[in-house]
Amino acid sequence: MELLDEIMLLHKGGKLETTLKNPIRTKEDLSKVYTPGVAEVCQAIAQDQAQAYELTTKKNTVAVVSDGTAVLGLGDIGPRAAMPVMEGKAALFKQFANVDAVPICLDTKGTEEIIAIVKALAPTFGGINLEDISSPRCFEIEKRLRKELDIPVFHDDQHGTAIVVLAGLLNALKVCGKNIKDVKIVVNGIGAAGISVSKMLLHAGAVNLIGVDREGALNRQVAYSRTHWNEYARMTNPCLETGQLSDVIKGADVFIGVSAPDVLKLEDVLNMAKDPIVFAMANPTPEIDPAIAAPHVRVMATGRSDYPNQINNVLCFPGIFRGALDCEATDINDEMKLAAAQAISSVIDAADLHETYIIPDAFDPRVVERIRIAVAEAAFNSGAARKKLLIGANT
Amino acid sequence: MELLDEIMLLHKGGKLETTLKNPIRTKEDLSKVYTPGVAEVCQAIAQDQAQAYELTTKKNTVAVVSDGTAVLGLGDIGPRAAMPVMEGKAALFKQFANVDAVPICLDTKGTEEIIAIVKALAPTFGGINLEDISSPRCFEIEKRLRKELDIPVFHDDQHGTAIVVLAGLLNALKVCGKNIKDVKIVVNGIGAAGISVSKMLLHAGAVNLIGVDREGALNRQVAYSRTHWNEYARMTNPCLETGQLSDVIKGADVFIGVSAPDVLKLEDVLNMAKDPIVFAMANPTPEIDPAIAAPHVRVMATGRSDYPNQINNVLCFPGIFRGALDCEATDINDEMKLAAAQAISSVIDAADLHETYIIPDAFDPRVVERIRIAVAEAAFNSGAARKKLLIGANT
Repeated sequence: MELLDEIMLLHKGGKLETTLKNPIRTKEDLSKVYTPGVAEVCQAIAQDQAQAYELTTKKNTVAVVSDGTAVLGLGDIGPRAAMPVMEGKAALFKQFANVDAVPICLDTKGTEEIIAIVKALAPTFGGINLEDISSPRCFEIEKRLRKELDIPVFHDDQHGTAIVVLAGLLNALKVCGKNIKDVKIVVNGIGAAGISVSKMLLHAGAVNLIGVDREGALNRQVAYSRTHWNEYARMTNPCLETGQLSDVIKGADVFIGVSAPDVLKLEDVLNMAKDPIVFAMANPTPEIDPAIAAPHVRVMATGRSDYPNQINNVLCFPGIFRGALDCEATDINDEMKLAAAQAISSVIDAADLHETYIIPDAFDPRVVERIRIAVAEAAFNSGAARKKLLIGANT
Repeated sequence: MELLDEIMLLHKGGKLETTLKNPIRTKEDLSKVYTPGVAEVCQAIAQDQAQAYELTTKKNTVAVVSDGTAVLGLGDIGPRAAMPVMEGKAALFKQFANVDAVPICLDTKGTEEIIAIVKALAPTFGGINLEDISSPRCFEIEKRLRKELDIPVFHDDQHGTAIVVLAGLLNALKVCGKNIKDVKIVVNGIGAAGISVSKMLLHAGAVNLIGVDREGALNRQVAYSRTHWNEYARMTNPCLETGQLSDVIKGADVFIGVSAPDVLKLEDVLNMAKDPIVFAMANPTPEIDPAIAAPHVRVMATGRSDYPNQINNVLCFPGIFRGALDCEATDINDEMKLAAAQAISSVIDAADLHETYIIPDAFDPRVVERIRIAVAEAAFNSGAARKKLLIGANT
């Protein structure tokens, strides 16, 4: 069968099912899971709302919410066409971390309306994974929902990427014998992902980090029309460098591209510091062709599965929500994100660490388990957990 | 184990799971159900929105939506405490009709907000089952959503009850050798269910139908403060009867109670016509104790599973949505509801029909299949189906 036919066949009627944990075979079964028996369960929750975690699917269920405005590289394709991605994401949640996830594609693009809808949906779920919502609306939506809801809200396109980039970078720096505090990092493409990656690296200790976009190196001495660029410039570029990518890349230890195909030239790479690290994550065509860059860099990573060191969100979101659900988290905060990144990088032992192996395989079963424990612990220590995870306890 | 402990244990962590139709075991699997392969599927839907039925879970998925304001007999217990009922409903959808159902409990009581939310959720689902939303808001919410959405919207508390009552009444009238066109019917309790039951019976041919509530027999010569009572009075009580239940019950062939415990007295039953039919559906305590009424009525039905002839919504909603999904219905209209009622009553052969067997068992596998075929056919004939059901075809 042709690959395309096979893919279409796999999607026929959708990729998910809702199934029963216990079958209903008799009138007696019916009277326990439905009326009249269920009334006792409802009353137990009405009297103590926290019982919703014990007695309903809230305990293990995440909503994957999108408005279909920024789907893969396809852009604003609408809620119906976005469904296969959200279903795929839900399938990965279940396969990798036994999280039950419900795809929800919304027929509205209004920031306030999306906020109101997700707030109204919240009692049903233990967490919200925002997905493929276009910038800059995604910032306001996530910020408001994090503030106003008592369950974790996580925009994977921003933070999932950031966490996996940090995980990979921590290992790449180890390979090169460099420290994140000392290196010069250039981030190219200051959209949702670029901002989140930068914040994550700063949180992990980076100091000399410079963001570059259409107007060149972002610099606090310039007033940009995009509010989030001004905020960004205030916390980055400490030496106030100016110019285009080809200027600021000089002497950089690390290039991180979340931008567009072929914007990084071989000459730029040759102008970087010794043992350069290049993460070229534009998809499907990276910022520089790995065949061209590889001979001149120490560590190279891309977003593609056909090269070594794939920066793949699948490494993060199942485990981070597994940990958040298991401790009944109220948020996924910076401490939890940092813990997740460190957990991912820790999966590769020092002995196995290598230029072409800085990121574990998504199917490595240690990934989810390490993230789960690290995230739940960080949640507890930072006051974002309703309960302490008993290590070794199954979900 | 004590029954209550057993019920609580059955609810631990919820009653539902989201599962994968095909496991994701390898990078190749991943590349088909997620990026990059999934992009082809998204584009197919973006180019032809109707493909959402072919290529996503929309084809087989219903949202069970509640605001938790009228849950069982418990009233306004809120969205978290309502979850076990919605999960139970979703479990029954799957068990009886292989419909995937997603429980969604909303943290708002605003009529307009609920309408806006359900409209925004609609692309994800093939149908909406509204549940346990208090009257009169449920009327406006359902009316507006039916009008504004292109998928079926069905408030089960109204129509599910009405369909099963009609199914039972058709068979009870056969037992008594009476015709729905000729009989005098008294409906007690003119709330959401009472109104819907009455409309259903009128649609099925009833003429002399009188509604009774706190102010006695509703009558078009009186102006009521409740708008829906005025509408109701205009289409019922053709002989303009007045008085209380004990007055209008005289000479009635049928009593239908969707009201309160013990409001029907033995004397009232004795004043009914020959071969009286009494449906006393207040739950858990009927309008008259079956032990008292049974010796004096020809056919008795209740909402309880421990007496014969249980009027149970479970008989209807799985099959009616199975049929609606299978023909990609745009609505569940009166023709489809009538077809569902006739299908339910048809399950009992003339030879088996008996005073204590007018309603089939919810576990009788013929129920869902007959409803499915009848509803899809009625949908097609009334212009509410996107496609014709191929009889015998599996879903």
